[in-house]
Amino acid sequence: MSLNLKPLGDRVVVQPKKAEEKTNSGIFLPSTANKERPISGVVVAVGTGKVADNGTKVSMEVKVGDNVIYTEYAGTEIKVSDEKYLIMRESDILAIN
Amino acid sequence: MSLNLKPLGDRVVVQPKKAEEKTNSGIFLPSTANKERPISGVVVAVGTGKVADNGTKVSMEVKVGDNVIYTEYAGTEIKVSDEKYLIMRESDILAIN
Amino acid sequence: MSLNLKPLGDRVVVQPKKAEEKTNSGIFLPSTANKERPISGVVVAVGTGKVADNGTKVSMEVKVGDNVIYTEYAGTEIKVSDEKYLIMRESDILAIN
Amino acid sequence: MSLNLKPLGDRVVVQPKKAEEKTNSGIFLPSTANKERPISGVVVAVGTGKVADNGTKVSMEVKVGDNVIYTEYAGTEIKVSDEKYLIMRESDILAIN
Amino acid sequence: MSLNLKPLGDRVVVQPKKAEEKTNSGIFLPSTANKERPISGVVVAVGTGKVADNGTKVSMEVKVGDNVIYTEYAGTEIKVSDEKYLIMRESDILAIN
Amino acid sequence: MSLNLKPLGDRVVVQPKKAEEKTNSGIFLPSTANKERPISGVVVAVGTGKVADNGTKVSMEVKVGDNVIYTEYAGTEIKVSDEKYLIMRESDILAIN
Amino acid sequence: MSLNLKPLGDRVVVQPKKAEEKTNSGIFLPSTANKERPISGVVVAVGTGKVADNGTKVSMEVKVGDNVIYTEYAGTEIKVSDEKYLIMRESDILAIN
Repeated sequence: MSLNLKPLGDRVVVQPKKAEEKTNSGIFLPSTANKERPISGVVVAVGTGKVADNGTKVSMEVKVGDNVIYTEYAGTEIKVSDEKYLIMRESDILAIN
Repeated sequence: MSLNLKPLGDRVVVQPKKAEEKTNSGIFLPSTANKERPISGVVVAVGTGKVADNGTKVSMEVKVGDNVIYTEYAGTEIKVSDEKYLIMRESDILAIN
Repeated sequence: MSLNLKPLGDRVVVQPKKAEEKTNSGIFLPSTANKERPISGVVVAVGTGKVADNGTKVSMEVKVGDNVIYTEYAGTEIKVSDEKYLIMRESDILAIN
Repeated sequence: MSLNLKPLGDRVVVQPKKAEEKTNSGIFLPSTANKERPISGVVVAVGTGKVADNGTKVSMEVKVGDNVIYTEYAGTEIKVSDEKYLIMRESDILAIN
Repeated sequence: MSLNLKPLGDRVVVQPKKAEEKTNSGIFLPSTANKERPISGVVVAVGTGKVADNGTKVSMEVKVGDNVIYTEYAGTEIKVSDEKYLIMRESDILAIN
Repeated sequence: MSLNLKPLGDRVVVQPKKAEEKTNSGIFLPSTANKERPISGVVVAVGTGKVADNGTKVSMEVKVGDNVIYTEYAGTEIKVSDEKYLIMRESDILAIN
Repeated sequence: MSLNLKPLGDRVVVQPKKAEEKTNSGIFLPSTANKERPISGVVVAVGTGKVADNGTKVSMEVKVGDNVIYTEYAGTEIKVSDEKYLIMRESDILAIN
């Protein structure tokens, strides 16, 4: 499905994984007492990158289709055709898996 | 209608969408417990861009006519001919849709 | 009337509009529950601009005579010949109208 | 009277005006409910300027003899021959009048 | 075992040492009253490095296989095949041992 | 007396003046209600200067032998041969007198 | 004794002096009411230096063998062969003595 949404700056749109606790590659995302819970999702749109202090664009590390791990409270939630998405900054993403 | 208003720096003027919960392109903007609610609007004026730390202008990503999604508390409200507008920074805009 | 006052850096001197709620160009400035109230005024003096992190001057966007909109708590108040003025930073100005 | 005091960096030494409420050029400095009170004084010594992030000196805008307006809580107080002076940063000065 | 996980920016993936209190090289990591407890682990994945303010990549100091010491609350915990890992920033690592 | 102490970065070592309230050049340092009390001392050692954001050294403004005024809570106290000294940053020094 | 520990970035490893209150060069480190107590130690390992905002390495001021003075709460404590060490940033070091 194509998502008509172009995130600004270093933002990305991520579709969270359904209520499973394992990523495709077998990574388990536990709920730990004193740490934020990591969440798994897939990148569906990427911005053009943020602007460095000297005015140059910094290119993005993630690309559409990447499976990513991010922290629980990252991003703003939107819904398209009953599917939930999050618009977050690339810096909210911990790793590609 | 022409709006006689030139936002300063990286600010934009956005006209919020009326009390509908779906954007033109079918994006639903839900109210989520622990996250800020996203709002949809259209850009009616753009500033010339902010100045980077090295003194150069950073060009704007949005342009007049763009449909945008921004967070609930962004911007300062003004009214022109009974229409409500918001003056906000481009960084308050999450995505173009 | 000439105002003998040279604001420093990126500061400007603004003469607030009297207790009307509409700007010259018909913009209404409402008092909104959870947002700062915008105020209208005219620029009567401008500084030479702030210095960027690399030591170069950043030129000002506003000029004497500009009608501007700024937020309620911006600036420090002074009085000249019974007229009220505000010394504020250019970044406190939202837009030229 | 000569003041044997060389302020460091972007600091200046200012001699506050006596308990009058008007500056030389007729500017009245009112006490406003929710804003800091502006104070008038004369610059008696200036530093060589602060160092920008790229290591270059930024030259000062004010010079000895300038009448300046600054906010109430700016600076550290010293006394020379029973006269009160304030050592403050140039950024605490709002305007030259 | 190969870990299919690519940390973003200046992040690294570290596998904490089991509940021993000594590192391989004989360093003891005590629990001190008013200081954070240091923890020992081994680096299993490294990001490509963070981007400096002028837009250039800063290369990483640690590499896969390094034994490292980091502070108690560093990172976000994930699990792969019942093994616990932490995704943290390189700046959370105190030393290689 | 020679003090075997090399302050790091932009730090200086200052020997505070004894419990007199006037500096050599006749500056009186009053205790003011809502402002930090200024203190007088003499510089006995200077660091090589701090490093600017672009990696270059910023040379020091003060030199050994300078009489300086600094604020009450500046620095860390040490004692050499029963004499009290303070290690502080040059930015804690208000002026040379 | 050789310490197998390579601190990262601008960190150093310092071995605190035993419970004496005087440094080798006769500097006494008093406990002062409203100031942090200075502590004396010897540098046993140094990092390669931090990275400036423009991406260049800043070389370290201290070297192995330097006697240094640092503040009481600096660093993270580790133990090697019953000896106590601290891993701290070079900026936590006040002076070489």
